[in-house]
Amino acid sequence: MDILALNCGSSSVKYQLYDWENRRVIAKGVVERIGIGDSFIVHEADGKNTFRDEYECHDHATAVSLIVRTLTTGEYKVMDSMEQISAVGHRVVHGGDKFASSVLLTPEIIKTIEDVQHLAPLHNPPNLAGIRAAQKVMPNVPHVAIFDTAFHQTMPQAAYIYPVPYEWYEDYGVRRYGFHGTSHLYVSKRAAVLLGKDAKDCNIITMHIGNGVSHTAIKNGVSVDTSMGLTPLEGAMMGTRCGDIDPAVPLFMQQQLDVDARTMDNILNKKSGVLGITGRFTDRRDVLMCDDVEYKHRCSLAVDVESYRLRKYIGSYYAVLGRLDAIVFTAGVGENAGAIRQMALEGLEHMGIEVDREKNLATFSKHGETEISTPTSKVKVFVIPTNEEIVFIEDVVAILNGTYRPHTEYPYSFAE
Amino acid sequence: MDILALNCGSSSVKYQLYDWENRRVIAKGVVERIGIGDSFIVHEADGKNTFRDEYECHDHATAVSLIVRTLTTGEYKVMDSMEQISAVGHRVVHGGDKFASSVLLTPEIIKTIEDVQHLAPLHNPPNLAGIRAAQKVMPNVPHVAIFDTAFHQTMPQAAYIYPVPYEWYEDYGVRRYGFHGTSHLYVSKRAAVLLGKDAKDCNIITMHIGNGVSHTAIKNGVSVDTSMGLTPLEGAMMGTRCGDIDPAVPLFMQQQLDVDARTMDNILNKKSGVLGITGRFTDRRDVLMCDDVEYKHRCSLAVDVESYRLRKYIGSYYAVLGRLDAIVFTAGVGENAGAIRQMALEGLEHMGIEVDREKNLATFSKHGETEISTPTSKVKVFVIPTNEEIVFIEDVVAILNGTYRPHTEYPYSFAE
Repeated sequence: MDILALNCGSSSVKYQLYDWENRRVIAKGVVERIGIGDSFIVHEADGKNTFRDEYECHDHATAVSLIVRTLTTGEYKVMDSMEQISAVGHRVVHGGDKFASSVLLTPEIIKTIEDVQHLAPLHNPPNLAGIRAAQKVMPNVPHVAIFDTAFHQTMPQAAYIYPVPYEWYEDYGVRRYGFHGTSHLYVSKRAAVLLGKDAKDCNIITMHIGNGVSHTAIKNGVSVDTSMGLTPLEGAMMGTRCGDIDPAVPLFMQQQLDVDARTMDNILNKKSGVLGITGRFTDRRDVLMCDDVEYKHRCSLAVDVESYRLRKYIGSYYAVLGRLDAIVFTAGVGENAGAIRQMALEGLEHMGIEVDREKNLATFSKHGETEISTPTSKVKVFVIPTNEEIVFIEDVVAILNGTYRPHTEYPYSFAE
Repeated sequence: MDILALNCGSSSVKYQLYDWENRRVIAKGVVERIGIGDSFIVHEADGKNTFRDEYECHDHATAVSLIVRTLTTGEYKVMDSMEQISAVGHRVVHGGDKFASSVLLTPEIIKTIEDVQHLAPLHNPPNLAGIRAAQKVMPNVPHVAIFDTAFHQTMPQAAYIYPVPYEWYEDYGVRRYGFHGTSHLYVSKRAAVLLGKDAKDCNIITMHIGNGVSHTAIKNGVSVDTSMGLTPLEGAMMGTRCGDIDPAVPLFMQQQLDVDARTMDNILNKKSGVLGITGRFTDRRDVLMCDDVEYKHRCSLAVDVESYRLRKYIGSYYAVLGRLDAIVFTAGVGENAGAIRQMALEGLEHMGIEVDREKNLATFSKHGETEISTPTSKVKVFVIPTNEEIVFIEDVVAILNGTYRPHTEYPYSFAE
């Protein structure tokens, strides 16, 4: 059974074709610059060279056709016909409070996703465009939606209600939703395995630190709080996003700069975070290694602010969880930036957190799952490479097989 | 030596006359509704009944004259002539990063306060109007400014820089400043006394919870982080202010409601927090005791959200401080709402915090300084009634006497 996972952004479609029986990625790639000209596909088939081709895609439907054609024809093909694809899994960023788990896409479900798209105007419309395009190209297979928000639907009200006019919650859906759900799910299950315990018995803080950054407090296996909110702008400092700031800041700066809400939203999402403080970089490797006199202070400051804010979230969720079994670092920065991990974790011995400094600094994604705490550390600290796609694939397979249940009940293969 | 402390809001002037030699409040009161019609004074002289009088005050100068006249004439007078007032202390809300301590007001200093008034457009202009009015009425005595922000000027950059475009910091002064400085100063010094230690050796979290709410992480006696930010909107949930929310929320709701930044700022400052969630109340006593079916759920939710967020700040600052000696609750709610303290502190035994539940629930302002943790609690928890005015008075006296030094060096009478 081969499953195609699709992740459609406004101008890109990422894909992965997975052979379920043999538990292996057959091919993966991305179509970029859809609808904005000069679009192209980068395709990587298992055991073959990476392949890049220019192909004009005016819309998501053309891009999905291109992906299917690339998978089934030419030198880099991995299957004879698209009939071999058993099902398609679609990433949907925002499920509002309508979806607490993955779901088979029906016209009613698509309508419900449309109903919440005002919550994620930049993400859900392209997700929906991708769903419609793929259903057109592959009308005879089941399509499944996997939501970034679903994992966090276990949060209690005290964690998700904002202290703003209550009508905003009732009428506009303003509340904390949280994102990166599949990543937090995956690494928390893996951490439970490394702890040798059932996920239901584990209290874990998961730190997903990539270009986007979110942290989750996981109590007895379920999300009880997370740092991203109504949108993926809240929480930790990110590559280009501000994270937590005085909510008066955008309003103050709107008046100073005489710009509207949409422009301000754009600045906070795309010109802030690491880029905002350094004025130049988003990649933490550049920031950590910068020796340009003009930027050095601001790079060093960006690292200080980022790691300081990680530390504050760890403390905050330590109070929320009551007992803490493990902290997990994942995603590009979380897996590879030992220096940032070190600065966030140092001096937390009073919380039972003892990091093996040398081991931590020498740990990268390529080492796989690694424990970076000392043997005597009460709280274990792990670096765990994330694998959101495998959650997609397993959810699709389970839904196809009729065995799907919420993540607390479902025996994911990676949780064994 | 009698010192007059003034706290000028946009339409009110609060005052307190203090007899330094005898360490007692001679009189205090407030003029309300200045410049908006039907203004009046409420005056309370030591040992006499409270006195209320209607008097039309079109501006702060008239209000200050009225205060001086009330202090020096009529049945409730407490002195024969205003010549007995040795100096005036003025509360100034926002000192930007220009003032790390209290200061004698000179034309240059007033100019500097004017330079930062864009940071607090609702607060600093009336503060300045009050200073000018009082200097006109009492031209022959020294006037001193005491800043809400001064105590927090010891914060490191990592705590005060926001992950927004750096030019906003350089060009517009966008950073965390913090407020309630005199309250955090006062209760942290008192906590050190109760701990029997030098303030410089104490790590303390101070929770100022009134209508406005702010928390401060105090390390070795100085503020290293605080929850309020550029403005007093950030941080904890407050009576009518939202505190921490996704910064996308105001921008999203501006677009949904089609309102400008100023209107949104007003909603977040005046229609949010406890009022926003309950839809009706700001006073926590009303919220805790509500049994109206229509509001009961939302009142209970407001208490849950408020106490949950207090708990998260305690955890966050616990991580920041490394070692924690004490937590202090102060101001109206902090001193009197035992139920909220209980919900914030329960289940933090893993952080060395053990509350004596019965003692906590029975502790109010009127009991004075009270330890509400158990004898075995590693971290002491205190309820300490705040006294911002005494900090005003002592700063003024010290500046008059030429003995004034930063708070880490100055021997405040209440710190002995």
